[in-house]
Amino acid sequence: MVKIPGRFITIEGGEGAGKSTHIELIVQWLNAQGIDHLRTREPGGTPLAEEVRKLLLERHDEPLQPMTELLLIFAARAQHLQTLIEPALSRGQWVLCERFTDSTYVYQGCGRGLPQENVATLEALVQGSRRPDYTFLLDVPVEVGLRRAAKRGQLDRFESEPAVFFHKIRNAYLERARREPGRFLVIDANRAAREIARDIETTLARIAGEGRNV
Amino acid sequence: MVKIPGRFITIEGGEGAGKSTHIELIVQWLNAQGIDHLRTREPGGTPLAEEVRKLLLERHDEPLQPMTELLLIFAARAQHLQTLIEPALSRGQWVLCERFTDSTYVYQGCGRGLPQENVATLEALVQGSRRPDYTFLLDVPVEVGLRRAAKRGQLDRFESEPAVFFHKIRNAYLERARREPGRFLVIDANRAAREIARDIETTLARIAGEGRNV
Repeated sequence: MVKIPGRFITIEGGEGAGKSTHIELIVQWLNAQGIDHLRTREPGGTPLAEEVRKLLLERHDEPLQPMTELLLIFAARAQHLQTLIEPALSRGQWVLCERFTDSTYVYQGCGRGLPQENVATLEALVQGSRRPDYTFLLDVPVEVGLRRAAKRGQLDRFESEPAVFFHKIRNAYLERARREPGRFLVIDANRAAREIARDIETTLARIAGEGRNV
Repeated sequence: MVKIPGRFITIEGGEGAGKSTHIELIVQWLNAQGIDHLRTREPGGTPLAEEVRKLLLERHDEPLQPMTELLLIFAARAQHLQTLIEPALSRGQWVLCERFTDSTYVYQGCGRGLPQENVATLEALVQGSRRPDYTFLLDVPVEVGLRRAAKRGQLDRFESEPAVFFHKIRNAYLERARREPGRFLVIDANRAAREIARDIETTLARIAGEGRNV
């Protein structure tokens, strides 16, 4: 395996944006380059964190309070970071994570209306200074994303929110990307998969190159 | 039912201090006085919060990180407070809760060595200004408590900690009681149940009397 310092890369986007498809293509590209990596996702990533994920995604008779949801997400994140992500980065692996704290700002903050500073408080508590090095934001119009998500079959607790929720989500993602242009890589995901993949690979080659020059 | 403003009363203490026994006696006393009340416990208290409790008390192959444990406890607490405790207090019920945030300061803070300010941050986030009005601390020597807990049968993830852990717990409880003498009611629980009950009832009568004078 080629020795390149580990990179923490997250993949974000609304429902049906193609996160799973493109993370798969990123994995293939890293394999082709011989770059050692770990593919994971949130909420979840470890058996215990996946148990918490189940509580988050299942429908319950008792409404899950927004603050409860926020704390469960960060509980899973604390477990995932300390058990899986931090050790992998320390070993020099690249970590590819589907959804991370940007999802929390966007879904629990803007989507559910929890104050952004509550998310920031927990981010500081759980992550210290750890942030993704790069974040691919796969952006598609809400209608396109929801049509794709609906094709996958039964909707989970998040996917069955009304459409206005997803417009808020998309705008909140784009706003975050505008504020952190150095970290966010916004990808127009309303194109043929091949074109999207080419964009992502060009960016990955640049990131891997940066690693070589450190 | 007699109309007395709701009181939020918590019962704290180490393993085998007699919390369940004495909460039962408190309930009998409140019934005898015709005081409307709700008996509950932490972590848990609602079906969802009890699901989180299971994650906390079960043994896992994967070590539960102290920060994960802390966040799960406050996730359950947020759900419990908003779904059960706050509505009951608003209706004027007394709420009797076995364990609350003092347990978190003592077990996760002192016991697991997490900084007290992390607990304080989450307490402020989840509870706002809500604190128990009164806290009965049932205090017994560690050896007495562990002997009683062992008689109950199989030990959970907390009960199977080494004895030094429980000495830390007892000291941390007593230290908290010293700092908040107005809220804490320290009960010497290494006596006959009848004597302890008499002490508790005298205190409850005083608290109920305060309510009448508001």
